Amino acid sequence: MRATLIYGAGDVRVEDVPDARLIDPADALVRVTRAAICGSDLWPYKSMPHEDVGRRMGHEFIGVIEAVGADVETVKVGDQVVSPFLWSDGSCVFCREGLQSECLHGGRYGWGDVDGGQGEAVRVPQADGTLVVLPVGVDDALLPSLLTLTDVMGTGHHAALAANVGPGRTVAVVGDGAVGLCGVIASKRLGAERIILLGSNPERTALGQEFGATDVVRERGEEAVERVRELTEHGAHSVLECVGLDQAVETALAIARPGGAIGRVGVPEHDTTPTGIAFWKNASIAGGPAPVRAYIEELLPEVLEGRIEPGRVFDRTGSIEDVPDGYHAMNDREVLKFQIKP
Amino acid sequence: MRATLIYGAGDVRVEDVPDARLIDPADALVRVTRAAICGSDLWPYKSMPHEDVGRRMGHEFIGVIEAVGADVETVKVGDQVVSPFLWSDGSCVFCREGLQSECLHGGRYGWGDVDGGQGEAVRVPQADGTLVVLPVGVDDALLPSLLTLTDVMGTGHHAALAANVGPGRTVAVVGDGAVGLCGVIASKRLGAERIILLGSNPERTALGQEFGATDVVRERGEEAVERVRELTEHGAHSVLECVGLDQAVETALAIARPGGAIGRVGVPEHDTTPTGIAFWKNASIAGGPAPVRAYIEELLPEVLEGRIEPGRVFDRTGSIEDVPDGYHAMNDREVLKFQIKP
Repeated sequence: MRATLIYGAGDVRVEDVPDARLIDPADALVRVTRAAICGSDLWPYKSMPHEDVGRRMGHEFIGVIEAVGADVETVKVGDQVVSPFLWSDGSCVFCREGLQSECLHGGRYGWGDVDGGQGEAVRVPQADGTLVVLPVGVDDALLPSLLTLTDVMGTGHHAALAANVGPGRTVAVVGDGAVGLCGVIASKRLGAERIILLGSNPERTALGQEFGATDVVRERGEEAVERVRELTEHGAHSVLECVGLDQAVETALAIARPGGAIGRVGVPEHDTTPTGIAFWKNASIAGGPAPVRAYIEELLPEVLEGRIEPGRVFDRTGSIEDVPDGYHAMNDREVLKFQIKP
Repeated sequence: MRATLIYGAGDVRVEDVPDARLIDPADALVRVTRAAICGSDLWPYKSMPHEDVGRRMGHEFIGVIEAVGADVETVKVGDQVVSPFLWSDGSCVFCREGLQSECLHGGRYGWGDVDGGQGEAVRVPQADGTLVVLPVGVDDALLPSLLTLTDVMGTGHHAALAANVGPGRTVAVVGDGAVGLCGVIASKRLGAERIILLGSNPERTALGQEFGATDVVRERGEEAVERVRELTEHGAHSVLECVGLDQAVETALAIARPGGAIGRVGVPEHDTTPTGIAFWKNASIAGGPAPVRAYIEELLPEVLEGRIEPGRVFDRTGSIEDVPDGYHAMNDREVLKFQIKP
């Protein structure tokens, strides 16, 4: 089958790989109907040293089940299913608490003998714990929005929860990438009164305004902090940090109101954070890799009933063979998010 | 009147200063009946460069009102009152939210023309917002416990709230100082199932066990982390960081369970924190200077009815003239916490 591999910075290739197949009785074999390139895929695309053996890529996908192992009970051949970006057993102590990102028996796509999502098919371990059946056909117009439940929509929702977004709160979203825009959707859905989107790309912030952002701040660094202070007097109750770069994290800490909450989901550029500013104003810092599996049940009806349209973040679609161009275009910020129709 | 001043590291003096007096119509003049030395007073005692003009010290005190300004309504001459370690107006947007530590018109004792608490009398600004009347006499046996409501008991409670302590949770308290021990009291009171106290001083950890600690970890650094992991399997749901030194903060981050919460109240040694470990396991970090004024109403009945006895952290009492010896003894860890009876 065809699948995507990365060999180093700027070097993404689509190649023939061994066909995906069942290995474990808890596996499902999924034929991919939609997949996506994630902002986090750009980290190795920017900086990975060359390796002679390529790494399989992709962790956002929807597909149709072609086969299941003997132990699989909740999904069956022919079901179209969505997978969170991590697989998880659904039964360990962390899964039962809704923190599937810490599953004791879970893992990542594209590692070891588990396929990546940017290919024709994927062996999904722990299928019962991982997959959720979608009540739509393989060409449904909702597939792009459903595809965001694999990662970016759930991650934006996680940021909003970590930042205690709720009715009456003023929210600031740092970053106009797909996660930031989904953070706007999540904040509006959770009842935020005012949503300030910090981003410099006019097309992306315009989409953010359609999603519910009430204000846009185009400045960066100190100027952005001053602008948010002008808009809010004391800062934002809730801040969603959806970038991860040091400057974005510092801005997020600075614009939080005393007693406010910062929800971090951007992959951190560095492990250390200048938290002093948060300590002295009693602002909390929460978040991390989103347990998106926990959120699919809640967000799925929202998509199916048309109340949220996160699929609008996809602004280019191509085949598997187009994936290297998709990486290039996303890395150059020509494309916000690339959808794959194998 | 006599009052305590610091001139530099190791140089605390009790001197004659101008008598405290009313200045503003919102002031109360309070004759101190009990005061204390705070762990945070030891920071300048350890490191402050010499200054020719001394700084007034002390922010934990109980006293009797001798006079009030024309605008004061809620306290009257003759009342014995307790003050939180910061004064606050009780009416600004932050005070109304219970974050009096951010009062827009509040401030610190010992700064500007406001007296310190380690003296014979104090001018208390914003008396209506700041002071709480105590229904006990000036020699009541409960005064030591009531005195902890000025700071350490409220601060331990704040750490516990920031760490989401509640029924069924496993709690780890980093630090066996007065705040850590009050954190144990607060955690037990909030229903924690298990309370692991990290501290190396046998007398202090013994008191912690009387307060409710179920386990004591005497190790530090990596060994402490391993020991807590042995005790808890995945770490503590709630971690109270009651020290502030880098090693204590790092230990607190390391022993938190995935999805857990770290409540920080130790004055940070440095502004930067290695938060990566918390991000990757979705552990939250909250806390800061405690709005102890918000907690006095809740904790006061607990003390008056004898359900908590935080005053047991005081293990030496002396007059104002003994205060320099008190600093010396606390700094040498001979004394846990020093009580002043002027």
